[in-house]
Amino acid sequence: MDTRESLHEIARVLRSASHVVIGSHVDPDGDAIGSSLGLALALDVLGIPNTVLLASGDACPVTYEFLPGSARMLAEAPLPAEYVFVALDSPDASRLGRATDAAASATALVMIDHHPDAKAAGSLNLLDAVAAATGVLVWRLLEALGVRPDSDMATCLYAALLTDTGRFSYSNTTPDTLRLAAEMVDAGAHPHDIYTKVYETRSAGAQQLVGRTLERVTLANHGRVAYSWIDESDFAITGALPEEAENLIDFVRALGGVDAVALAKVNADTVRCSLRAKTDIDVGALARAFGGGGHRAAAGFTYAGDLDGLLQVLLPMLPGGTE
Amino acid sequence: MDTRESLHEIARVLRSASHVVIGSHVDPDGDAIGSSLGLALALDVLGIPNTVLLASGDACPVTYEFLPGSARMLAEAPLPAEYVFVALDSPDASRLGRATDAAASATALVMIDHHPDAKAAGSLNLLDAVAAATGVLVWRLLEALGVRPDSDMATCLYAALLTDTGRFSYSNTTPDTLRLAAEMVDAGAHPHDIYTKVYETRSAGAQQLVGRTLERVTLANHGRVAYSWIDESDFAITGALPEEAENLIDFVRALGGVDAVALAKVNADTVRCSLRAKTDIDVGALARAFGGGGHRAAAGFTYAGDLDGLLQVLLPMLPGGTE
Repeated sequence: MDTRESLHEIARVLRSASHVVIGSHVDPDGDAIGSSLGLALALDVLGIPNTVLLASGDACPVTYEFLPGSARMLAEAPLPAEYVFVALDSPDASRLGRATDAAASATALVMIDHHPDAKAAGSLNLLDAVAAATGVLVWRLLEALGVRPDSDMATCLYAALLTDTGRFSYSNTTPDTLRLAAEMVDAGAHPHDIYTKVYETRSAGAQQLVGRTLERVTLANHGRVAYSWIDESDFAITGALPEEAENLIDFVRALGGVDAVALAKVNADTVRCSLRAKTDIDVGALARAFGGGGHRAAAGFTYAGDLDGLLQVLLPMLPGGTE
Repeated sequence: MDTRESLHEIARVLRSASHVVIGSHVDPDGDAIGSSLGLALALDVLGIPNTVLLASGDACPVTYEFLPGSARMLAEAPLPAEYVFVALDSPDASRLGRATDAAASATALVMIDHHPDAKAAGSLNLLDAVAAATGVLVWRLLEALGVRPDSDMATCLYAALLTDTGRFSYSNTTPDTLRLAAEMVDAGAHPHDIYTKVYETRSAGAQQLVGRTLERVTLANHGRVAYSWIDESDFAITGALPEEAENLIDFVRALGGVDAVALAKVNADTVRCSLRAKTDIDVGALARAFGGGGHRAAAGFTYAGDLDGLLQVLLPMLPGGTE
């Protein structure tokens, strides 16, 4: 089934659903949240009852609280006996966290995702690795549903596009990406407001966290890789919230002359490692080798161990590591 | 004369010129440099001899060295007896620095600018405060000149647009801005490459400078204003170049909950102060009161004195300062 057919088949299933449950991946980012809320608002317009489940956390992350409908993202909610589950931005069901059971119990499972490693695990699948964000696929789904995006939907989906293109910086920023962004602004999204709320409402503690992270940037692999780290004490000292570290790697990545950067968030027994490629290397494949996932240029995984252990196994697999 | 007529009249004058000299403002930014080089490359295609003069500095700032033709930006160059001078992104001739004399001696002076305080001081003027960047006006001028932008021109003008919209974050990011960016990408500009080279090739020293700046962020005016500062010793200690501080205020501005932020670059007898509005206040008017200039949301001025003296006069004029 091609994309167009998938879209119309999914639209048909949603239109005839008595209830729709929307879920996305754990540690939700702008695309997971924006595309979930954009779809929920469109279903509202169609009069289709719907529930948005959080895969992790107890509420929408603070950064995205400004998005219309953010308060409807629930950690738990009573569900009817029959419903269609839409999994957004989740390459496989295991990434759905607390929403995994709800997906398994659904009458129909619809997977909508743009990750290259996405699995067609649904009864209906709209998987398009060319799409810059899952929000792009939801934008197209709105059209297939016959819903004209209002400013609230446009705001949610612009936030999805903005964050998953790294504010129009990643290689997925094509002419079509920019034209779609223009369409969203035409529909009522405010680029300045959204940018400010996503990237420029950092708390004083979050700013200090950036400072600490930048001070710790370390070059490795003959200068081809840079890494930095934060641990739980940094949150305690600065007062920054864990979710305020979401975009921290963007600051590390601003260092030039390296092939890749890594940011390690060190917890008691595990390290969450984010990777970004700065040249044409595939950090997505590397992350998958560690049981994680992501894209060619942006990926992550969780390592069971401490920072030293992580660096011992990770650095040799990055450019310059075996020289 | 409306914009369309101005464009065609300017195109006519340039086409018949035996030589064109291009100049922009002191402390050149991405728009000043990108629009200058974009125009120079177009004149090359038309076989019109041209010279690009630097208003300050001895060479193109390191950040923009990647732009095609950057090596042709000269601090001094022999000029023929007759030439047309094109002043780009300079609201008045006094901002042309070392290029002021060359502008005064020209056969014809063409002013192309988008600053709201631009003065029609040329024999021909294309002043459009709605344009997101001077590079937008140069893009239109290329069309009027009958030059189809190649990838080099598109790269220069995309860099102009990217930087003067704060990577599509300022309120000048309209649907037209995004569609124009798409056109530039169609013509061969690479968003990822350009973004990386402008924003993500910071040296280790520049990264440390960000860290120091963020550590010094101070709230004032009952929390409505934040400021930070750097001085010459910071450059000595970190090894960062002065021009690497160009976008430093963007890091300060990421702090939420304030109406405005200021960054002071403290020199021996003067302080260069950059201002950014975060709510609907006019920092451009404030900067002009101090003899500087800029836009409503982004402006700057030079203060004769030290940091304490600056803060004593500046803070009372910002929100919350007289309460």
